[in-house]
Amino acid sequence: FNVLLQMHSVGICGSDVHYWVHGRIGDFVLKEPMVLGHEASGRVVRVGTGVTHLKPGDRVAIEPGVPREMDEFFKSGHYNLSPSIFFCATPPDNGNLCRYYIHKASFCYRLPDNVTYEEGALIEPLSVGIHACRRAGITLGSLVLICGAGPIGLVSLLVAKAMGASQVVISDLSADRLAKAKELGADILLPVKREDLPEEMAKRVESMLGGMPHVSIECTGVESSIQTAIYATRSGGVVVLVGLGASMTTVPLLNAAVREVDIRGVFRYCNTWPTAIAMLASKRVNVKPLVTHRFPLEQAVQAFETTRQGLGVKVMLKCDKNDQNP
Amino acid sequence: FNVLLQMHSVGICGSDVHYWVHGRIGDFVLKEPMVLGHEASGRVVRVGTGVTHLKPGDRVAIEPGVPREMDEFFKSGHYNLSPSIFFCATPPDNGNLCRYYIHKASFCYRLPDNVTYEEGALIEPLSVGIHACRRAGITLGSLVLICGAGPIGLVSLLVAKAMGASQVVISDLSADRLAKAKELGADILLPVKREDLPEEMAKRVESMLGGMPHVSIECTGVESSIQTAIYATRSGGVVVLVGLGASMTTVPLLNAAVREVDIRGVFRYCNTWPTAIAMLASKRVNVKPLVTHRFPLEQAVQAFETTRQGLGVKVMLKCDKNDQNP
Amino acid sequence: FNVLLQMHSVGICGSDVHYWVHGRIGDFVLKEPMVLGHEASGRVVRVGTGVTHLKPGDRVAIEPGVPREMDEFFKSGHYNLSPSIFFCATPPDNGNLCRYYIHKASFCYRLPDNVTYEEGALIEPLSVGIHACRRAGITLGSLVLICGAGPIGLVSLLVAKAMGASQVVISDLSADRLAKAKELGADILLPVKREDLPEEMAKRVESMLGGMPHVSIECTGVESSIQTAIYATRSGGVVVLVGLGASMTTVPLLNAAVREVDIRGVFRYCNTWPTAIAMLASKRVNVKPLVTHRFPLEQAVQAFETTRQGLGVKVMLKCDKNDQNP
Amino acid sequence: FNVLLQMHSVGICGSDVHYWVHGRIGDFVLKEPMVLGHEASGRVVRVGTGVTHLKPGDRVAIEPGVPREMDEFFKSGHYNLSPSIFFCATPPDNGNLCRYYIHKASFCYRLPDNVTYEEGALIEPLSVGIHACRRAGITLGSLVLICGAGPIGLVSLLVAKAMGASQVVISDLSADRLAKAKELGADILLPVKREDLPEEMAKRVESMLGGMPHVSIECTGVESSIQTAIYATRSGGVVVLVGLGASMTTVPLLNAAVREVDIRGVFRYCNTWPTAIAMLASKRVNVKPLVTHRFPLEQAVQAFETTRQGLGVKVMLKCDKNDQNP
Repeated sequence: FNVLLQMHSVGICGSDVHYWVHGRIGDFVLKEPMVLGHEASGRVVRVGTGVTHLKPGDRVAIEPGVPREMDEFFKSGHYNLSPSIFFCATPPDNGNLCRYYIHKASFCYRLPDNVTYEEGALIEPLSVGIHACRRAGITLGSLVLICGAGPIGLVSLLVAKAMGASQVVISDLSADRLAKAKELGADILLPVKREDLPEEMAKRVESMLGGMPHVSIECTGVESSIQTAIYATRSGGVVVLVGLGASMTTVPLLNAAVREVDIRGVFRYCNTWPTAIAMLASKRVNVKPLVTHRFPLEQAVQAFETTRQGLGVKVMLKCDKNDQNP
Repeated sequence: FNVLLQMHSVGICGSDVHYWVHGRIGDFVLKEPMVLGHEASGRVVRVGTGVTHLKPGDRVAIEPGVPREMDEFFKSGHYNLSPSIFFCATPPDNGNLCRYYIHKASFCYRLPDNVTYEEGALIEPLSVGIHACRRAGITLGSLVLICGAGPIGLVSLLVAKAMGASQVVISDLSADRLAKAKELGADILLPVKREDLPEEMAKRVESMLGGMPHVSIECTGVESSIQTAIYATRSGGVVVLVGLGASMTTVPLLNAAVREVDIRGVFRYCNTWPTAIAMLASKRVNVKPLVTHRFPLEQAVQAFETTRQGLGVKVMLKCDKNDQNP
Repeated sequence: FNVLLQMHSVGICGSDVHYWVHGRIGDFVLKEPMVLGHEASGRVVRVGTGVTHLKPGDRVAIEPGVPREMDEFFKSGHYNLSPSIFFCATPPDNGNLCRYYIHKASFCYRLPDNVTYEEGALIEPLSVGIHACRRAGITLGSLVLICGAGPIGLVSLLVAKAMGASQVVISDLSADRLAKAKELGADILLPVKREDLPEEMAKRVESMLGGMPHVSIECTGVESSIQTAIYATRSGGVVVLVGLGASMTTVPLLNAAVREVDIRGVFRYCNTWPTAIAMLASKRVNVKPLVTHRFPLEQAVQAFETTRQGLGVKVMLKCDKNDQNP
Repeated sequence: FNVLLQMHSVGICGSDVHYWVHGRIGDFVLKEPMVLGHEASGRVVRVGTGVTHLKPGDRVAIEPGVPREMDEFFKSGHYNLSPSIFFCATPPDNGNLCRYYIHKASFCYRLPDNVTYEEGALIEPLSVGIHACRRAGITLGSLVLICGAGPIGLVSLLVAKAMGASQVVISDLSADRLAKAKELGADILLPVKREDLPEEMAKRVESMLGGMPHVSIECTGVESSIQTAIYATRSGGVVVLVGLGASMTTVPLLNAAVREVDIRGVFRYCNTWPTAIAMLASKRVNVKPLVTHRFPLEQAVQAFETTRQGLGVKVMLKCDKNDQNP
């Protein structure tokens, strides 16, 4: 049930760069060479026996995580938590930053004509935002705090607005990143400095929003920012942890507990591709401004270097020599 | 804990006209004269002892249902189901289509400067849409069928889009109503005729949407339309019944049951005013096009006659002689 | 990823008898001979390559429904709704009432030593009760009405009590069935007659329970019983439809809608085997009294005849010549 | 809408002793004398105008928290989070450890004849267990870890079993407390020592249960125990924080986040009294063994001293001179 794909566009993720530079992320250690890339789209070249929903020529977005076992997590709809899952560019599984790539057909999703390859590749980071906002329970009229205006903060912003959030305040150290957030629809910008005190930041958030946020989405992994998110969130609300920080964290757990502020993490995503495609096809979400750089695959090193230096938001590698369009 | 209000704008609801013409709705029978009106906003003139969140001069929207008892429904967050609830213009409780009116302060909500009185009055019908869409579980990427493009179908449309629905198809007998739905953001229009067969309509919906809707919101109360909604809805989805029809209805319950399509009713709303105000203040929802007629309170009979004839969408009565603005 | 099983105990279900007698159930029509049986347990004889959680000699319970595709339903945890699912003894898929049988390993669950083969086979009907009670949202202190004291009504009773229901009233036409329900833990018995009026029955239920039930589980499929369930259920509560009746049903949908009584169907079950095994192993649920008859496989016709005549509750066929123990 | 009650039985809570000894708990500081007591039951002596569900002579259990405002928390069913709530024996609000006491009628619940006054008083601690287990989402077949076998750990145990948990392991430093837990139905006892390492404890829990717990209920507030609860809980599971510890806590938040283990606090309870009465009346939960000491009100000092020394589980003060029965 596989398909052979000619790869078209692959975005570079911070984790790709991390493996490139450090050879590991936490317990995931590279022991032999690995193909990078997991934000990808391509064109179907050939389909295996029994594949009925795709045919050669179909343009598809690729969900990089494919459960290997029908375990309790898969059966109950949380296949992202399945410990034996295959995942592109997480060692020892190869990614799809290449010319041709084989993937499980049921995790390739046909793109409508009005969704570009690059939008298809951007479904991967967008999915992190979708999963985070779902876990957060964002709904009509939610006041939302997003900590960090990097790629994940930005997609969370896009999704939060699309799910009905009425006001989103987004914080960052960098004025450039905040400007990008403004461009993408942030209602309120909150510049932060390293020395800001969490409890004071929380008060500033409340005053800016005219009320405490129902939901805070923490995308930095920085301890003080997690603390701010907890203090800031309304009683009965939710803090979602997207950013990954140190293994041990000191937080005002008592404050969260007695106000019934739930703390929820996210691990990748599940069941997001069809949703994302529906949103892109109906033009309810616009991810195009996220792409700030493009390189042909031959210039991959330069592309990785660009991401490593933190330039722009999203760097795209173009894998099809005959079609370098978005 | 009451406030005295000078009324400003009061919308006319189908139920107001029904009481005016028939003197009853189902088991609710008028036994003595009753003030009509429950879609209302006004200005605070005086506040009772202990009222702290409002002061004279505040512009407020009025939630017409106020629970009288702290019963199991109120305590668990479903005060709309409290059998002893006070409700404006449901006999024997008087409504607020008048010059001055006293209401429980905690069910009056201050309007921000950028929300008009008429928007405030429209929060009542909008709340029906919010409650219906919440009960439906509409979320990012939902495909939605709305049966009926009257005022409630239209507010459901506005809310469904604001909650992230990617495609909304709306059906009606009337081309005029469908045109209004288009103006308000409907993605697909489905003209229906009385003789259309439910199972065929269901197939047409699937083909128009490119998939069965996750959610159907039935706003007509007509038996064949309820049947269409059931057949049309995707396995595991939800049919919400907003329109009220006959006391006994013949429906394909087996079809719904074996596909786990839930059937859920709505009774008014709860916890919608703050949400609605947040959406109006942030311009995420635009209800202004719903108002098609305005009359000063002195011409109330003419206003009721307009609604009775089914002209336009929403008729507003202006109760403040010195301020007839929206 | 298959396992070869030597079958041990297979219960006879009403649907097995229906196929035997009528050759069809609704749209499922037998076109060629089919092996019956889907309430089954057996012993692992051989395991296919890649099967790690089972080994020869393991005693297992068999989940008869195995999704064939990783479609939206499977991915989101509702694999029972997957339209292409394999299901034992639903045409054209063969069942497991035989000596040896091959099944997908991930849908075979190892039985602890203190759970018998027959308990393992009974997990199938028990699963219907688990799924129904989950869909009903039964929880601590729920008042529950169960309509019908056949095998499914009885397992729903067992599960409802295990999930914390404080009072369960169960209705049936047959005094024998009600006596069995009493034996299994029913708190209140409600004998019904065909001519009973639904609204009066609803009042009787309320008076017996000292309050309207939060949940009604309808296991008969009879129209008047569905009506009773709707009238009886508390505002904001749930009616679960387990019994299958006619394709069109006339019900007081208006009554359900304005009291926000949800109507939810069930289609088989998902994610129930591990739960059931945990409950059986910890002796929290006792299904043993459900088995009233046992026959060796050679006497299958007599066994089917017994079920057809409605004798007892559950008839077990013993497929292992060398071990006819429970 | 008040009732005058003659108090009958009042349990002593750790918080009562804390106020008695230290004059404060965190930010709640005693500024003038305060009546203690909030685990209470009594007999209605007189009812105010408009009270219809109670009459003199009724035996009632008292819910000590009464919302003062119809704010967003009350309206949405989370009145425990209302910041202006009245709460017995939380400064400056007086408790009900006295002879006669006036309370809001809608927060007094009639006890059935087969529920004793002491059971009525024990509904308060039982409510903490109910709220914790609800927040935990305990359901049929849950594997549960409870950290701490004090009064709250014990009521959580009782409720977890009643909600369908199949296996509960409970930990404590004290062998006596573990013995009590065994008596109340704990499946597995886990003696801990101060020097035990959280990650090792987590492994021991998994091995004892034959799988990681779906839910951990932390009732000690001790940092290492919170760490154990996080490490021990299954991916996708829930840690509920009931025990209150230091204001800042160092925890493996990353471990919780990437396994989507939710961390949820509890603040008192809401909507628990009717549930608890239903469970007590139907004998589904037995709280009687919790009472280990009884004193007449005149010996209150001795009673407090008993609790202060950590003797037994629950000490009851008997406030009615003419009826000192349970």
